[in-house]
Amino acid sequence: MTERINRQWCLAARPEGLIKDSDFQWVEEPLRSIDDGEVLVRSIYLSLDPANRGWVREGPSYVEPVEIGDVMRGITVGVVEASRNDRFSEGDLVTGTIGWQDYGISDGAGLRVIPAGPLPLTAYLGLFGMVGLTAYFGLLDVGQPKAGETLVVSGAAGAVGSIVGQIGKIVGCRVVGIAGTDEKCAWLTDELGFDAAVNYKTDNVVRKLRKHCPDGIDVIFENVGGEILEAEMTWINNFARIAVCGLISGYNATERQGGPSTFPLVLIRRARVEGFIVLDFEERYAEALEKLSHWYTEGRLKYRVDVYDGLETAPQNINRLFDGTNNGKLIIKVSDEP
Amino acid sequence: MTERINRQWCLAARPEGLIKDSDFQWVEEPLRSIDDGEVLVRSIYLSLDPANRGWVREGPSYVEPVEIGDVMRGITVGVVEASRNDRFSEGDLVTGTIGWQDYGISDGAGLRVIPAGPLPLTAYLGLFGMVGLTAYFGLLDVGQPKAGETLVVSGAAGAVGSIVGQIGKIVGCRVVGIAGTDEKCAWLTDELGFDAAVNYKTDNVVRKLRKHCPDGIDVIFENVGGEILEAEMTWINNFARIAVCGLISGYNATERQGGPSTFPLVLIRRARVEGFIVLDFEERYAEALEKLSHWYTEGRLKYRVDVYDGLETAPQNINRLFDGTNNGKLIIKVSDEP
Repeated sequence: MTERINRQWCLAARPEGLIKDSDFQWVEEPLRSIDDGEVLVRSIYLSLDPANRGWVREGPSYVEPVEIGDVMRGITVGVVEASRNDRFSEGDLVTGTIGWQDYGISDGAGLRVIPAGPLPLTAYLGLFGMVGLTAYFGLLDVGQPKAGETLVVSGAAGAVGSIVGQIGKIVGCRVVGIAGTDEKCAWLTDELGFDAAVNYKTDNVVRKLRKHCPDGIDVIFENVGGEILEAEMTWINNFARIAVCGLISGYNATERQGGPSTFPLVLIRRARVEGFIVLDFEERYAEALEKLSHWYTEGRLKYRVDVYDGLETAPQNINRLFDGTNNGKLIIKVSDEP
Repeated sequence: MTERINRQWCLAARPEGLIKDSDFQWVEEPLRSIDDGEVLVRSIYLSLDPANRGWVREGPSYVEPVEIGDVMRGITVGVVEASRNDRFSEGDLVTGTIGWQDYGISDGAGLRVIPAGPLPLTAYLGLFGMVGLTAYFGLLDVGQPKAGETLVVSGAAGAVGSIVGQIGKIVGCRVVGIAGTDEKCAWLTDELGFDAAVNYKTDNVVRKLRKHCPDGIDVIFENVGGEILEAEMTWINNFARIAVCGLISGYNATERQGGPSTFPLVLIRRARVEGFIVLDFEERYAEALEKLSHWYTEGRLKYRVDVYDGLETAPQNINRLFDGTNNGKLIIKVSDEP
């Protein structure tokens, strides 16, 4: 067997501001053979997510930061090319956290076999992956929307936000999304069934939300933070719920950011602001996937993916999440599907 | 019957910053006679509370603001001097929102008869009034402390905070209070049984909290906001609860305040931040008063009152709540007890 080369992006420096190519080092090293209990996974698709930015930061987070020199952490879909683990067979399609590399060797922890079916593989990094699970638990468990209530979603055209809004419609809410281009706004209202959309780059967000939320806001699904969250909070009703999924506006900040100046409304409106991480709901993933699958089959959930070619493009493409130039779930194609 | 004069403080201007005498107008007017269904209440004690500052502000709040020219709103203990309402008899001691005046005429709405008993009347503006109810529901229902957890209380030597900390001890928490003088801190630890206290005027709050909360912070009962809340949030554990009762540090602000810069920890720590207003728990006041009474009888709840003489002193004394020169529940004695 010829020696195989594993290409990897390793963390070279903790990024300041937006991620730069020089924050990662391109490494090519020979692939070792697997031991008992291990599987060799070839990466096919690599998911790029806002959370990745937090993983390379020092300081408190919900997971350990990626250490300098380590392969960059990332969620992938791949194929098992060799297995010495009873749970996996050669040819299995799997999803797990293989990272920014061609191949990963895993003991199977956190690796899930993708069931055979008609769905494109990329769906397992989107609607049927962490993205869909995040939308499901964040909206339904943390946000607790009721029929007839008004839901506002920031980052609404993003992978998570777009699913949140559609679930909001399924449970009977008025849904207003905030996004960064007219094209994205049109997609939300024309394709996904949002009741209204606000372009935060061209609209006065406070005024537009007032217009589109005539009965005030009951649930906020927050992906952005900063001024967007401030604007949304202006119109919260009594007992509003703010599910904090992400605060992407601050992820590349090089200076300490203030919290929302509308914070006192938490008291006046008796609002609940709650952060969540999808990993905390792991025991209930099956329930959520069943529901998402059911809604998808009924045609009530749509998603789009934005796939870029080549592992080498990961560092520059990840910034699309922060400058808003992605259109749908951002994915890097690392190798061909089997 | 000779005509009686009713002395009143009416709102003259919306205060900018700390309340000034000139924000109120002293009015003396003849008292009218009562109609069918009404009662005449003579004020004995007037409660001064941080919430009063919000009541004179324009803009969103949980109650309508006091209008310019209206008698200032305030919670009182008084005695019924005349009644044409079946629910009240002459001589009844009552508590309600009579306001900053010698006499109030009420249709009985919101007026409660104080049961006969050994307690001093001032207790009904403190432990057995809104203060105790606020502490009870805010800590137990919103904060949801569990035995063995660490509770941090800001404004801990205040009327609400001091009761919160003692209830925290009753339910088995480690309790750390934050107050503004060494005397207050000593009172918390030596008299009320707090495990530790931090003087925010002389201590480095972040460092002291780290020291006194070696296992992190599970529950914050927030009366202050601003930098104090920021410091507390630094050490919150996963799934921490922050019960927002007051944000007194901003009540006299003349410029828009930023929110806590530690806000992103809400996400990282999956914390819940929840504002509450005691009025929302009205249906359960009886339950709470029974519990508070039980604990008080057992000697497990102590409180202190800080009584100043004369209705005319209300505008200058209310600022004691904001400069920290009160020691215990701040009360104005308006007239003698019967």
